[in-house]
Amino acid sequence: MRDYQLPPSKCIAMMKLLAFCLFIISLINIPIAEARIRHYKWEVKYEYRSPDCYKKLVITINGRTPGPTIFAQQNDTVIVEVKNNLLTENTAIHWHGIRQIGTPWFDGTEGVTQCPVLPGDTFVYKFVVDRPGTYLYHAHYGMQREAGLYGSIRVALPDGQSEPFAYDYDRSIILNDWYHKSTYEQAAGLSSTDFQWVGEPQSLLIHGKGRLNCSTANSPLKADVCNNTNPECSLYSMTVVPGKTYRLRIGSLTALSALSFQIEGHNMTVVEADGHYVEPFVVKNLFIYSGETYSVLVKTDKDPSRNYWATTNVVSRNSTTPPGLAIFNYYPNHPRRSPPTFPPPGPLWNDVDSRFNQSLAIKARKGHIHSPPATSDRVIVLLNTQNEVNGTRRWSVNDVSFNLPHTPYLIALKENLLHTFSQTPPPEGYDFANYNISIEQEDNNGTTSDAIYRLQFDSTVDIILQNANSMVAEVSETHPWHLHGHDFWVLGYGRGKFDRINDPKKYNLVDPIMKNTVPVHPYGWTALRFKADNPGVWAFHCHIESHFFMGMRVTFEEGIERVGKLPSSIMGCGETKHFREP
Amino acid sequence: MRDYQLPPSKCIAMMKLLAFCLFIISLINIPIAEARIRHYKWEVKYEYRSPDCYKKLVITINGRTPGPTIFAQQNDTVIVEVKNNLLTENTAIHWHGIRQIGTPWFDGTEGVTQCPVLPGDTFVYKFVVDRPGTYLYHAHYGMQREAGLYGSIRVALPDGQSEPFAYDYDRSIILNDWYHKSTYEQAAGLSSTDFQWVGEPQSLLIHGKGRLNCSTANSPLKADVCNNTNPECSLYSMTVVPGKTYRLRIGSLTALSALSFQIEGHNMTVVEADGHYVEPFVVKNLFIYSGETYSVLVKTDKDPSRNYWATTNVVSRNSTTPPGLAIFNYYPNHPRRSPPTFPPPGPLWNDVDSRFNQSLAIKARKGHIHSPPATSDRVIVLLNTQNEVNGTRRWSVNDVSFNLPHTPYLIALKENLLHTFSQTPPPEGYDFANYNISIEQEDNNGTTSDAIYRLQFDSTVDIILQNANSMVAEVSETHPWHLHGHDFWVLGYGRGKFDRINDPKKYNLVDPIMKNTVPVHPYGWTALRFKADNPGVWAFHCHIESHFFMGMRVTFEEGIERVGKLPSSIMGCGETKHFREP
Repeated sequence: MRDYQLPPSKCIAMMKLLAFCLFIISLINIPIAEARIRHYKWEVKYEYRSPDCYKKLVITINGRTPGPTIFAQQNDTVIVEVKNNLLTENTAIHWHGIRQIGTPWFDGTEGVTQCPVLPGDTFVYKFVVDRPGTYLYHAHYGMQREAGLYGSIRVALPDGQSEPFAYDYDRSIILNDWYHKSTYEQAAGLSSTDFQWVGEPQSLLIHGKGRLNCSTANSPLKADVCNNTNPECSLYSMTVVPGKTYRLRIGSLTALSALSFQIEGHNMTVVEADGHYVEPFVVKNLFIYSGETYSVLVKTDKDPSRNYWATTNVVSRNSTTPPGLAIFNYYPNHPRRSPPTFPPPGPLWNDVDSRFNQSLAIKARKGHIHSPPATSDRVIVLLNTQNEVNGTRRWSVNDVSFNLPHTPYLIALKENLLHTFSQTPPPEGYDFANYNISIEQEDNNGTTSDAIYRLQFDSTVDIILQNANSMVAEVSETHPWHLHGHDFWVLGYGRGKFDRINDPKKYNLVDPIMKNTVPVHPYGWTALRFKADNPGVWAFHCHIESHFFMGMRVTFEEGIERVGKLPSSIMGCGETKHFREP
Repeated sequence: MRDYQLPPSKCIAMMKLLAFCLFIISLINIPIAEARIRHYKWEVKYEYRSPDCYKKLVITINGRTPGPTIFAQQNDTVIVEVKNNLLTENTAIHWHGIRQIGTPWFDGTEGVTQCPVLPGDTFVYKFVVDRPGTYLYHAHYGMQREAGLYGSIRVALPDGQSEPFAYDYDRSIILNDWYHKSTYEQAAGLSSTDFQWVGEPQSLLIHGKGRLNCSTANSPLKADVCNNTNPECSLYSMTVVPGKTYRLRIGSLTALSALSFQIEGHNMTVVEADGHYVEPFVVKNLFIYSGETYSVLVKTDKDPSRNYWATTNVVSRNSTTPPGLAIFNYYPNHPRRSPPTFPPPGPLWNDVDSRFNQSLAIKARKGHIHSPPATSDRVIVLLNTQNEVNGTRRWSVNDVSFNLPHTPYLIALKENLLHTFSQTPPPEGYDFANYNISIEQEDNNGTTSDAIYRLQFDSTVDIILQNANSMVAEVSETHPWHLHGHDFWVLGYGRGKFDRINDPKKYNLVDPIMKNTVPVHPYGWTALRFKADNPGVWAFHCHIESHFFMGMRVTFEEGIERVGKLPSSIMGCGETKHFREP
């Protein structure tokens, strides 16, 4: 054996190299240990499916609708490569509830944050899921969401951390309603001058499955169109083990319907809403609006020798849509075995009080309260109105119905293409003194605009959603409003016309829940507060697909000057065609 | 009065100025006097229509399907501004029969000559119509043509020139077949692994109108879906004055069907085919294939006290599609008055001889013969085959089914992006010795490719379309092949397998007709010759929409180095995203 003596200079150089290597290794290790990459490759295309026994064309992700659930842990980076194989149709996918901090360009909102993805193109979404909780994803282009392009996102706590409630098993379930007409047919009817309303959905789906009775359907349906023996439309069955506690993560992506969800004979303890812990409260039935998510805890402590119904019922509309059914299957009963009982009836569709009360019951969980700023810098009142604009029926706020411009706002603002949309600010309120929200308006005329609300960065903004009578006598609909890029504090709900002097005094500033989607109840108001602290351009809209399509949306900009360099992959439409890089 | 004497230098300068002004005026005058600009603004969108009494979503141009007829004179420049209002779907429009000399980028063939036009975008087509005659236009993207996006182009002779035949009135008429399923449903069925054939069309339309019997339709149809009292589906009625000669310009844009067209009791003299004068011949019924146009002369010399039926019948397929009906209305009879007779029956669907004979009868008119080159530089044999490719049914040539690449060829070739498609040349023939065209093949396996045929500029190319048995026993279908960017000489038709030694000796080199679309008859062959003298990239394909969709197409390139600077408006997809200019 020989002994090598290195000169000191060489020794120091090697030590430096070693230190550098260790540093590099540490860099590599951090993401592996603490935040992983969750990589998904999706193919989006049209396929025939029979989710409720009725065969129609749906949009699938990797052959499935609902699409695959995204599983991740807090602070993971999710990468989804979306290959558009829709033949002649573009697409875009929104990650509902993910705030996209630092990546406003991957919010997936066509016309706001990106150009549509062309057939044959692969668009890569890449974003961090920075908070645990239950979220959704869905198409955000035309009315594609309704065609089946949607799914769940489940973000777990980091290893070693646990929720402030205990459960044995964790399950995701998506609620939906289902039309037999194609989204093209619906959209064409809504946008034509001889307006054709989409009507009530034909089915309610529980986790993508329903069960139309083919023989009693609207008109006799042939077996190649509607077939009740098709195994594709066997009811969804959730198998549970007796004597356990289940966390059910329930999301709604209905096109139109407000729902009541219940599990026959089982109470549910609400513990999470839109990714935030809720001070627990018990319900027999959960009201859930399109765009909302809840976690409920269910104990499987009932007679284990049988199965139970899980049901959805339409509320808030006097709907012709039959209830949605699924089987809550106590192991080891056969998962397809029908419960021996009739499905329990839902609540009365027009029992507004119960829905109001649930809204009021949802508060932040003790120990997990994010306190809101005590005051706001700006109050924007959004009167929910239905209007006639140039002979077409539209939904609006403050009598202004939203029109999407041809160049996405995020790019237009960042690249200073301000001529691409109206620079006249949209109205921040309505005629508070004279507008009677309780009756149809004599003058229903509205206007359209693509103007946006520009918010001062880091300011605190209050939004008052004010409901009103629609164009139909004695009808005020429930509108679930969804805000992109933020959670907001829900400061209060009220009935009638919001009183700008007195109602703010009753705001809950102690333990308001934070959410991203909230209903405004019939003839009522809902008050929200959020910090405009996420640089980007963000949609805020009614989550009812047809209302959204008919213009019930606004757009907020904040801190555009702080937005980083836009990826050229979001460009290629309107005036951004030449911004694409090789 | 004073007399001014100009210095000679100033005089010359003024004379020069005068000459320059006259020159400028002459430049302005030339286009006005001899070739006008024909400017059209079109809005393309989905609307509900009931062309055959069955209500469905169709694509309209300015509210109409068929779209507006383009009227122009030889050498006019046609400008069509196409605004895509299809909401989520792209588009592209092909000008069928217009050679696009010098403007190969405005041929409107998505994936070959341009990127698709995005929703909200306006694409401006601009091209010269350099020859008089009867042409067509239609969507060339996905299967949109079938949704109703099509129309006629009529190019008249310059003022003072006249046709070599006399007539009093000139009328355009478009024939079509009509499906009740959407193009999405059709395309999804064709491209799924559990292949679903589109089936036979539900109706035949004459100039966009048909008449389904709602009560005897496939299944009972409700009045809101099918209503025979809807005036929208009153039969098309062509009013004629007795004792005159009518030129009928008849074009077919059927999705599937080969047609026989006749006017009860009236003979028709064929005088034009695809923009070329035909040595006149008389028919009782005209066979016409998708993509073809004919002019026929009809004398209104029958009993003027009544109306007559105009009918279309499906030939070549044993179709369930009922005949198409229209009224040939002798003025002053009421245009909606039914003729007192039963509509005349069409020819037997499987009477191949008659169709063969009509093909053989079509020759160039004396005095208007364009002589073909006596020999060709290259012979490409295209065996029409049906194949199974990776478990999917496809149509192919030489067992190769065409796949469109992601970057349009014209741009890829001009900008040297050769990696965007296969550089392995496609086969120029098949196993001539051993392939039995008369029977189903034991091995139906095919491949797909996006390779193209590169032709030497200005060379003469022969194409032999060789028909064969499909994958169904004893079935060989009629395929109408359409060539973009050229007319070809039709040198011959034959039965059975083309004999490469002896059949060319029988070619008609004396008075072959020039066409852009030609059928290959069941179990037969068709021989074409064309000069590769139009710099660009050109599609050649079966004009049956579903066959085309299933891969029955090839692509030719010639003289790409002579193609001028491409307009950036055709770019924006695949690898051309960054080529767009502001």
